[in-house]
Amino acid sequence: MSKNKPIGVFDSGVGGLTVVRALMERLPNENIIYFGDTARVPYGVKSRNTIIEYTTQIVDFLLQNEVKALVIACNTIAAVAGQKVRQMAGNMPILDVIAAGAQAALATTKNHSIGVIATSTTVNSNAYARAINSQNPKTRILSQASPLLVPLVEEGWLDHEVTRLTVQEYLKPLLAENIDTLVLGCTHYPLLKPLLKKEAPHLQLVDSSTTTAEATAQALANTHLLNDSHLPPDYRFYVSDIPLRFQTIGERFLGRSLEQIEMMRLG
Amino acid sequence: MSKNKPIGVFDSGVGGLTVVRALMERLPNENIIYFGDTARVPYGVKSRNTIIEYTTQIVDFLLQNEVKALVIACNTIAAVAGQKVRQMAGNMPILDVIAAGAQAALATTKNHSIGVIATSTTVNSNAYARAINSQNPKTRILSQASPLLVPLVEEGWLDHEVTRLTVQEYLKPLLAENIDTLVLGCTHYPLLKPLLKKEAPHLQLVDSSTTTAEATAQALANTHLLNDSHLPPDYRFYVSDIPLRFQTIGERFLGRSLEQIEMMRLG
Repeated sequence: MSKNKPIGVFDSGVGGLTVVRALMERLPNENIIYFGDTARVPYGVKSRNTIIEYTTQIVDFLLQNEVKALVIACNTIAAVAGQKVRQMAGNMPILDVIAAGAQAALATTKNHSIGVIATSTTVNSNAYARAINSQNPKTRILSQASPLLVPLVEEGWLDHEVTRLTVQEYLKPLLAENIDTLVLGCTHYPLLKPLLKKEAPHLQLVDSSTTTAEATAQALANTHLLNDSHLPPDYRFYVSDIPLRFQTIGERFLGRSLEQIEMMRLG
Repeated sequence: MSKNKPIGVFDSGVGGLTVVRALMERLPNENIIYFGDTARVPYGVKSRNTIIEYTTQIVDFLLQNEVKALVIACNTIAAVAGQKVRQMAGNMPILDVIAAGAQAALATTKNHSIGVIATSTTVNSNAYARAINSQNPKTRILSQASPLLVPLVEEGWLDHEVTRLTVQEYLKPLLAENIDTLVLGCTHYPLLKPLLKKEAPHLQLVDSSTTTAEATAQALANTHLLNDSHLPPDYRFYVSDIPLRFQTIGERFLGRSLEQIEMMRLG
């Protein structure tokens, strides 16, 4: 039965594990297969053509594994290659962090001024602004490329003075524009939520990992694809490289121990 | 004549351009061909096997271009794949930033306590300690992985409070051990020299880009390979991807305008 088939979740690296974590909590019956392209991370600094080429290889791999739905757990891929994924995967449910985040931001904002922090590529793609404005053209979107936040999270400086100053610097132009809602436009950023809440307590934070999990639950329900088996779910994690500290960093993102990691080289 | 052949310089990305800059200044007659693996940067977070595989592809490409010498302008590659490069390239001069930096550090230190800042992979490889101790086993080497410095340099925060605090944090354990010499063990770090000099004015800084250029000049002289042509030198730059902001960042590293960039996908 196709209901038992796994949800395919993918990212350029480990960040998408924050989405897997949210999916495990929201949809505890679902089987999940994850692909993280750790050999070629980060995508956020690569050209559009390269990102599309790498994404095609990942989606091929997940389709060979007979997934019933795809979750693009990477803002850069969603911004640059979302259309390509939809072309390749036909009519199965396809969710992505940008669509889910945009929807949640619109449902949250009161003053229609939304800030977005993300990698340079995501910001330059203008994808959040397009997704939000396609539903409400009057909403203002202020975006800020924040390339230092990923390495700060990976360094584990989640509550460090350096991170606080960096966040202040990145938020300054957004706060000057009086935003009331801040989209965490990168799957690494949920780990910075405690610090962001301290630095900007009046902002509503949109965490696209939880909003994507919610959107996935709705899409599976709408298409009658929710898994009704009561077997314990099967989780498989594939990465294209297993670098130093992968286990440590991955488990910090997933919020539990990472087992059954397999290496799979693409391309 | 083989004297006219280019020097092949390579790196995982743009950092090696600081070495190219030093080579252009020290050896203004030499032709240079550069390869930066910008599609797969950074190497510093990848496994040993992946780094060796990618390095093999780069060296193949440069050997096909008939270089007369190779300069490994990347600490991670020198640390992990230096031996592989020497196996592949036979008996041409092969220089690398670690060997050159180690030699210069030994010539600089008075109290035989040397600090090294570098990426996690370089630090974990222990390559500087091995290179220094093979010549003087009594020298103490204190190493500090400094993964945030590369993104800070690429963000252009060369004189920023955040960078100052980050440098202080990374230097603290080294200064506590009373080092008198600090090796900049990553080709991005020469751009931080002004800030490092302010933060630790009593330290002697070893910049492996200039020390590698000097070592290259000596090796070419010893093997009678110095170019004696008076034609203007030919510089060619190959990268595996041309991402956003590549020009800006590359020119900051090279210290002059970057022309004749070609894209070359390997593997």
